[in-house]
Amino acid sequence: MGKRVGEQTVLIENHVGIASSFAVVGPKEGKGPLGQYFDQVLEDPLCGQSSFEMAEHVMFKRACEKCIEKAGLEKGRVQMMLGGDLLNQIMAASLSARDLAIPFLGLYGACSTMTESLLVGAMLCDGGYADPVLCAAGSHFCTAERQYRFPLEYGCQRTPSAQWTVTGAGAHLLMRDGGEVRITMGTCGRVIDFGISDANNMGAAMAPAAADTVWHHLRDTGRSIRDYDQFITGDLGAVGSRLLYDLLGEKGVPLSGEKHTDCGLMVFDKDQDVHAGGSGCGCAATVLSAYVLPKMCTGEWRRVAFMATGALLSTTTSQQGESIPGVAHLVVLERERT
Amino acid sequence: MGKRVGEQTVLIENHVGIASSFAVVGPKEGKGPLGQYFDQVLEDPLCGQSSFEMAEHVMFKRACEKCIEKAGLEKGRVQMMLGGDLLNQIMAASLSARDLAIPFLGLYGACSTMTESLLVGAMLCDGGYADPVLCAAGSHFCTAERQYRFPLEYGCQRTPSAQWTVTGAGAHLLMRDGGEVRITMGTCGRVIDFGISDANNMGAAMAPAAADTVWHHLRDTGRSIRDYDQFITGDLGAVGSRLLYDLLGEKGVPLSGEKHTDCGLMVFDKDQDVHAGGSGCGCAATVLSAYVLPKMCTGEWRRVAFMATGALLSTTTSQQGESIPGVAHLVVLERERT
Repeated sequence: MGKRVGEQTVLIENHVGIASSFAVVGPKEGKGPLGQYFDQVLEDPLCGQSSFEMAEHVMFKRACEKCIEKAGLEKGRVQMMLGGDLLNQIMAASLSARDLAIPFLGLYGACSTMTESLLVGAMLCDGGYADPVLCAAGSHFCTAERQYRFPLEYGCQRTPSAQWTVTGAGAHLLMRDGGEVRITMGTCGRVIDFGISDANNMGAAMAPAAADTVWHHLRDTGRSIRDYDQFITGDLGAVGSRLLYDLLGEKGVPLSGEKHTDCGLMVFDKDQDVHAGGSGCGCAATVLSAYVLPKMCTGEWRRVAFMATGALLSTTTSQQGESIPGVAHLVVLERERT
Repeated sequence: MGKRVGEQTVLIENHVGIASSFAVVGPKEGKGPLGQYFDQVLEDPLCGQSSFEMAEHVMFKRACEKCIEKAGLEKGRVQMMLGGDLLNQIMAASLSARDLAIPFLGLYGACSTMTESLLVGAMLCDGGYADPVLCAAGSHFCTAERQYRFPLEYGCQRTPSAQWTVTGAGAHLLMRDGGEVRITMGTCGRVIDFGISDANNMGAAMAPAAADTVWHHLRDTGRSIRDYDQFITGDLGAVGSRLLYDLLGEKGVPLSGEKHTDCGLMVFDKDQDVHAGGSGCGCAATVLSAYVLPKMCTGEWRRVAFMATGALLSTTTSQQGESIPGVAHLVVLERERT
């Protein structure tokens, strides 16, 4: 069949390209180093709604609508929508799918959702099951804080390893024979648990999964770090990125800051008081649109391994003392030499 | 390409069969009319664990492990696992995927998750991206009650339209050229919202989505109700099933009890005090294994439209007064004449 290589990697043999992308972010993200590159920066994190959850939904929907519009399509042309978010029962994605009336497959991979959706979307598009496919993910600082941690009003002191959930949503439209940047491969991650139970150290919980996926990807494909212009992780942050280098180093894979960047480290400035960096489904989703794809379109990067990482916890499992497993899905983005 | 027909339906052209299935249920389900047909009935709804959430996880994992074992495979042979549950952040599925170490794509479609996973799994298997693929879903009465409604200890009086979440997990292994019963088509549902906001009337919230998916399926394929031996819904219950007939009737599609059964109506006896019937991801997942597939294997049914239905709500959206949209995904199960 030739659609698989090794244990976890699939080949996307047809041209499945990212035909359009759209990123909406909150005011804090707009003030960060990538501020000018996002398609839309909200002035109001409530987005004119009466709750942060509804603001997250409106932001998610806007990213989807504008992404389809940017591709010059009517939304009725989009054959499938794949996505998710961090809200319990992925309500931002579900309500957006309702409003858009596109056949919808809801995904949950915590902060790995953006690449989970690109990976599944690429397979469905490549296989001829849907074209175009809309892939989206989002998160909101204010909903994530109160759902996973503390009420905002509590003004809780954050630990040095804590990350700041990105308020943002990104949507990407996959299309056969469309877009300059193609998805050429994907590696579906396993759920890895190193026993981390500190809900304020997501980087440490996700790094083992990221290392596992990179390692399997390289083993499956017979490639090395040198075969990529860049490895880009979703939201390992400062702590998780260092752990990723250590874990891969132990397996003889020399990844370092020279060939690696993390969306969570790019999205905020150090003086924005975000501690170990940005996080959330919206982090990888918006940085892909604002930073990664533009750098590929200018030819600076030709081949990128893009991998969002998720920490699989709920408040219930945390309160019950369970550890926090992680998962990471990788897609290979390539721009052909022109 | 020939992999799609109409607006929402995909064709599974290769033989993608259900090579093995396994269902674990709780004691109450074991006392119901299908009790003797489940593979395993728990004596203890806590499953020897210290919390109901961990019991749900153990039950989910057991269904997966035993399903793989029943197919005579080692778990390392399974190339992908797709699944989800009703716990916040689908923790039962995520922790099971960790324990099984199979590359994992987490899904969330509320009680539609079983057919969401069979639909995606069938496309990935048909397309050559993964084979075999493990598809699973589960739910637990005690975790769903306390997460979505009231603490169990509160002893809340239930409304006549309320349904009883099935304690159970079902796993199904899809394999190329394996199994007598094949998935030959799938219709990916849209998220439909008729403005129902009563969290104790899930049947009414889901029926419009079920009607929409059936209607699109028939329009996409040019088929009629007569072309199927049975339409089987996941957990519309008594209220939702009547609404489904009404909604389809308005569109000129004559579905009735003669050609329709609902897993939620089959899984419990009337005297088990479950009001409008069973519900939960585990309802469709376990009844498929215990009742639907055996009836197809004996030749009583040759072609079945199997459609789990989900109500997309969270406690937060409910408390904020949002309505409850529904979604339903349909797979066509066929057994060739021998």
